[in-house]
Parts: sequence; C-alpha cells; structure tokens
Amino acid sequence: MLYKLLEPYKIVLASASPRREYLLKMLNIRFETQASQIIEKANGEAVEKQVISHALHKAQSVAQLRPDADIIIGADTIVHLDGELLGKPESVEKAREYLRRLSGNTHEVITGICLYHQGKAYSASERSVVTFAPLSEAEIQAYIATGEPMDKAGAYGIQGHGSQFIQGIQGCYFNVMGFPIHRFYTLCRSTIKEL
Amino acid sequence: MLYKLLEPYKIVLASASPRREYLLKMLNIRFETQASQIIEKANGEAVEKQVISHALHKAQSVAQLRPDADIIIGADTIVHLDGELLGKPESVEKAREYLRRLSGNTHEVITGICLYHQGKAYSASERSVVTFAPLSEAEIQAYIATGEPMDKAGAYGIQGHGSQFIQGIQGCYFNVMGFPIHRFYTLCRSTIKEL
Repeated sequence: MLYKLLEPYKIVLASASPRREYLLKMLNIRFETQASQIIEKANGEAVEKQVISHALHKAQSVAQLRPDADIIIGADTIVHLDGELLGKPESVEKAREYLRRLSGNTHEVITGICLYHQGKAYSASERSVVTFAPLSEAEIQAYIATGEPMDKAGAYGIQGHGSQFIQGIQGCYFNVMGFPIHRFYTLCRSTIKEL
Repeated sequence: MLYKLLEPYKIVLASASPRREYLLKMLNIRFETQASQIIEKANGEAVEKQVISHALHKAQSVAQLRPDADIIIGADTIVHLDGELLGKPESVEKAREYLRRLSGNTHEVITGICLYHQGKAYSASERSVVTFAPLSEAEIQAYIATGEPMDKAGAYGIQGHGSQFIQGIQGCYFNVMGFPIHRFYTLCRSTIKEL
C-alpha cells in the first residue's frame, strides 16, 4: 500500500490543487501541502516533456522553502485538444469557447509527476483520453453558471457537475482529476527502493 | 444540470451504497435514501437484462415503502470476469481468489439503473472495462488487510486503495463506482420530458 511505503518519510505536496490533496488523503497518505509560486508557460516541446519539466520545477521551488521535507511531490496537468493546450479559462467567454470545442469531441489529459528527494528527481507521466457528449448552448450556459469551469484546465471538472457530460474515458481516471495514482504508485515503488 | 432537472421532484435513492449516495451528493441532487431489502440472485440471463431487472426490483420494493416519493432511483452493479459474475466476497479466502483472478487482467463492470415514477419504469445500463495491474501475493495480502475488499463486488473499490492497482479503464468511471452519471443524465433528460 502506498501509505505504508511513504510512512517513514516527511512528504510535501507541491501543489495548491484541492483535487490532488483529496486523492492523497483518499489513499491515507500523511503529507503537508506547500503551493509553489511557479507559473508555467507552454512552450513548443512535446507535451510529456513539458508536464514533466513543470512538475520538476514546482518540486524544486518547494524544496527551497521546505528543507525539512524528505520527499516532495510535484505534478502538472494539461488538457490537449487538436494540437492546442487548453489552460484555465481567463473569462466566461473563454470557458464557453473551450466547452464548445470539447463538445462531442475527444481530447487528451496529460499529467507529469515528480518525486524529489535530496536533489534527485524521479519522474513519470500519464496520458488519458476523454470523450465529451455533444453539448447544447443551454447546457454550456448552465454549466458555466455553476462556477465550476473557471478554475480548471480545459474549463471542466470531471469530478463535479462536469461528470454529467463525460461519455467515457480511456486510461487512468485519476489522471483526468490531476493525479495519476497507479503511475505514482509504480514510481514510488521503484524510487523508494533506490532511496 | 441534473440537480435543476430533478429539483421539482421528491427523489428517493433505493440503495444502501455509500458510493451512490456520494455521487448524487456530488451532483447537488436533493434526495433521501431508503435501502431495499431485495437480495438479487444471478440467473442465466444476459448481464444487461439482469442488472436492469435488479434495479427495477429494488425501485419497486422501495415504492411500496415510500408512496410519498415522486421518483425512485434503483441501481444494480455487477463485476463480470471470464463469463462469471463476481459478487461481494463472503470470506477473506474468496477475496484473495477474486483479486488473484483480477490481477493482470481485464474485466467488465455493468450497472443497470431505473427511474420509477407512478408505476412506470424507465431503464438503462452501462458497461465499462477495467484493467488491473499484475498484483503480487504481498500486494493482495496488504490490500485485504485494509478491509476495503470485503463489502464490494469483485473484492475491490476503484475509489479507495484499489485505485493504486488500476492501470486504466475504458468507458464511464462512475459506472465502475456503481452509478453511471452520464447515462443517468441522458435517462433523466428523456424521462422528465415524458413525466
């Protein structure tokens, strides 16, 4: 079990995401949270490379603030549609545009994770495919009115009202929530042996 | 939004499953819970037919107890592996057997749902595919020790420690949790118009 594997260490989660906190708590992992101040900008690199390097930067930045931590967990999630990265919408108009584009379509969610320990980083990434049902303008309007889309990459949350619109996924569900649990588990198993 | 659609009705969930309660609450739906006393037995019928008829029986049995309800929601979920239905394990030995069989393998989870209103039933079902990572005997042992497998069909819970072992799914994640939200949404949309 993950919580047993991590029990001997002081763990810090380098993320302000309530979804990631929720998932680590669900797994009974003892940890503290320290948000990094890093704001990542997309660049031209391959998507997997970008999320892994963002996760690493977040973990490294928190390592400066928390020298008491044994292991720092960094993570970065992006939503990828037709070759474009969809971030958090800056406006209601942008959220509407994103949801129109996701409607009746399939997109990808990619998360990079990083375990940072004594200056060494252990990384992995995960990719899931999400299929949205076709949405009417009235459904988009009602969903935006709930307030849920505004603080989420791609303007939706799969674990909230957004769940109504998701026909199905292929891959790790928790990755779509922002933290690929099985991938994290395999990374911990191989890393903890090395530590 | 589902909760707006259902707002005018007195809703009763005919299920004792804490996962289903959790999901309806996540969607802000106002409802009461009334467990049915129905214990369903597998029969030789097609799996979809079985879960739909179990969901209907649960809803009908609660309808007797709750004549004040406008809409009763019934649901039944089964885990299907190599042509066999895996129920809740009756013993630790049975849980170990199920987990050994799920290990490194792909199985199906099928849920039937039923909306029951004034003696009329509106039904649907959903099927998802779940892929387990290969598990060692030590992992199976540690997982059983958490107590999580014992009250769950197939001896695992995807939303708890079991999440560590799931490589991925194909289809609706919430169906694997016991309640296919998107399918329920489309059923409600078509049904509420008819009501």
